[in-house]
Amino acid sequence: MPRPIVTLTTDFGLKDPYVAEMKAVILGISPDATIIDVSHKIEKFKIRMGAYVLASASPYFPKGTIHVAIVDPGVGTTRRPILIQTKHGYYVGPDNGLLTLAATKQGIEHIYRISNKRFMLPKISSTFHGRDIFAPAAAHLANGTLPEEFGPEISKIVTPEFAKIIRRKNTLVGEVIHIDNFGNIITNFGEKELELMNVKALVNVKLEGVRQKLKLCKSYADIKPQQPLAIIGSHNFLEISINQGDAAKHFNIKSGDKVTLYRS
Amino acid sequence: MPRPIVTLTTDFGLKDPYVAEMKAVILGISPDATIIDVSHKIEKFKIRMGAYVLASASPYFPKGTIHVAIVDPGVGTTRRPILIQTKHGYYVGPDNGLLTLAATKQGIEHIYRISNKRFMLPKISSTFHGRDIFAPAAAHLANGTLPEEFGPEISKIVTPEFAKIIRRKNTLVGEVIHIDNFGNIITNFGEKELELMNVKALVNVKLEGVRQKLKLCKSYADIKPQQPLAIIGSHNFLEISINQGDAAKHFNIKSGDKVTLYRS
Amino acid sequence: MPRPIVTLTTDFGLKDPYVAEMKAVILGISPDATIIDVSHKIEKFKIRMGAYVLASASPYFPKGTIHVAIVDPGVGTTRRPILIQTKHGYYVGPDNGLLTLAATKQGIEHIYRISNKRFMLPKISSTFHGRDIFAPAAAHLANGTLPEEFGPEISKIVTPEFAKIIRRKNTLVGEVIHIDNFGNIITNFGEKELELMNVKALVNVKLEGVRQKLKLCKSYADIKPQQPLAIIGSHNFLEISINQGDAAKHFNIKSGDKVTLYRS
Repeated sequence: MPRPIVTLTTDFGLKDPYVAEMKAVILGISPDATIIDVSHKIEKFKIRMGAYVLASASPYFPKGTIHVAIVDPGVGTTRRPILIQTKHGYYVGPDNGLLTLAATKQGIEHIYRISNKRFMLPKISSTFHGRDIFAPAAAHLANGTLPEEFGPEISKIVTPEFAKIIRRKNTLVGEVIHIDNFGNIITNFGEKELELMNVKALVNVKLEGVRQKLKLCKSYADIKPQQPLAIIGSHNFLEISINQGDAAKHFNIKSGDKVTLYRS
Repeated sequence: MPRPIVTLTTDFGLKDPYVAEMKAVILGISPDATIIDVSHKIEKFKIRMGAYVLASASPYFPKGTIHVAIVDPGVGTTRRPILIQTKHGYYVGPDNGLLTLAATKQGIEHIYRISNKRFMLPKISSTFHGRDIFAPAAAHLANGTLPEEFGPEISKIVTPEFAKIIRRKNTLVGEVIHIDNFGNIITNFGEKELELMNVKALVNVKLEGVRQKLKLCKSYADIKPQQPLAIIGSHNFLEISINQGDAAKHFNIKSGDKVTLYRS
Repeated sequence: MPRPIVTLTTDFGLKDPYVAEMKAVILGISPDATIIDVSHKIEKFKIRMGAYVLASASPYFPKGTIHVAIVDPGVGTTRRPILIQTKHGYYVGPDNGLLTLAATKQGIEHIYRISNKRFMLPKISSTFHGRDIFAPAAAHLANGTLPEEFGPEISKIVTPEFAKIIRRKNTLVGEVIHIDNFGNIITNFGEKELELMNVKALVNVKLEGVRQKLKLCKSYADIKPQQPLAIIGSHNFLEISINQGDAAKHFNIKSGDKVTLYRS
């Protein structure tokens, strides 16, 4: 039996005791669990950023991995704590859209509302369900508790409005879904969209109102240092980058900004 | 036999090799240890912040957990390296007050001065006892070395002046003990103090010289986004927060600031 | 059989899913591996900083530890992915000088070019070899795959120009190799250089064009708080520090700056 893997994705940061308290609770219930941090630097309350990071990382984890994710501005309200069973693993967290993108990509099989108090801490605060509800749920799941024991099956969960691509005759309008640590501008365009717009050697985009013609590169180093380029990145999205530089800073772009892709 | 748990709380940050060197030393001696980071972002030399974070996290860890904590402006001086055995676990670190709050809350049973060189690295630097003395002590403890083997029992340790509450006729004067990642202002008032001041629906406080009447909420979302509130937080302290906002920034408050609570 | 240890040193930061994806790949192949973060806060593209941090941490890890390091401005180019077997452990990463310092210190035995696609992910991106090539190589190595199975043995690797000490009659000119989280200025002078310049109680240096006479201390607290000092640090280099302060900020010094040491 391999050791169960529990991942954590939160907006808690790394300064406070909060992440350690979740790990303490998990190890108290499931001492053999391997706990892996996905990120604790999701921007505060940015559900979409959390959803993107979680959906990016989770395909690489082994089958059966339990993903706990908490970006939870509605903690303590009636928003439901949920457990999603997919073809590949499990997602535990608030029903606010955070889990939906990752879970949908893996094929949702069942969704349960976490309500069985046997699998929660004895005292439940109104501000820290990560420690009091979600961490123990993940740990009990790691120990072999069946998903259906956590509460009633439900059929609908919150599905956030993720960036959609608007198709016009000679343009596609998409969005910046993430700016990474290197300043790479990650868009929601993929290879399909490049084909639709007949993109070959040059990517013709509008960023913050300014048209750019960028070389479509195979690697950052296809272009001189400090020069901008376009590339299909490691998650199969079109990224706008600067070789050894920071494209987001250079183009003054932030997550959520519109990007227009022109027909070549 | 469950795997022993060793936690780390330091002001070392995450950029340098220091934390990894401690983990390397621990795993070299006790390969089965599970090492959990509590925080490495304690502000440099801020013993009280380290004490608060450690005392907050440690109750959630399983019995027998070994907590190593290092915020150590006196490293290399005569301040003593100590090991505290409590009813619940062990604390290893400098005798400068850092461990006292957490250990006292768990019930101190024995305190030892770490002096047995058999349980230290062969070469001891004067600037990094975390790696050379505390990490090996924790690892040997994890391996089953008895606490009394580390050195002579001692009876007194440094007890820092933690924030005390000053009681006047119609007010209590307390202190901000921590500002968390969300900007929540965590005070040293608890439910007892709210009762004493007859607080019901409204919390009447003075922050940085300015009186505030704040709704005492059950959850952040009891109030509109960007509005301030008071709440008993997840560690049972009165916190002043802003729903989806940053209260510390809004009220210009930092750790250590005085807070006055008025009779309602 | 102890569990294999895999360490990670990168410039990826902690916000994005990248580090978690590497860990996911490692655990998918080698579920028993213990993964330890050395640092993910190497400054972007700063190979020398990564080399310093890796070389500092790796001697403390047990024999057989597998170190993966990625600071890789040339990802996707013809720079080679390599595996170095030393007397003490293994190094996996790009052939750009990042691994050379640490591996040389441990005694290089064999170097292999990683080219066997059996030990890579099925789909290899051009921008994230950490996940697609280096993480799986480390995990297969952890599982017992022999180093020579990864590809052909090679004899030469990139050796970066690390800070050398220039010797003049009455001075040595060295360099700041690292500024740590505390603002300690770590130079490339060691005890040998202090002897050569006949340094006893006072260290006579020029920093940013300004001469300083600093007391050579045994511990930070040998001098009053906020006062500068010189000390042989925990990695046996001469460091310039301020007791409970930030020397790099005080002296306006950054990594790479020249330091002149005068004969006493």
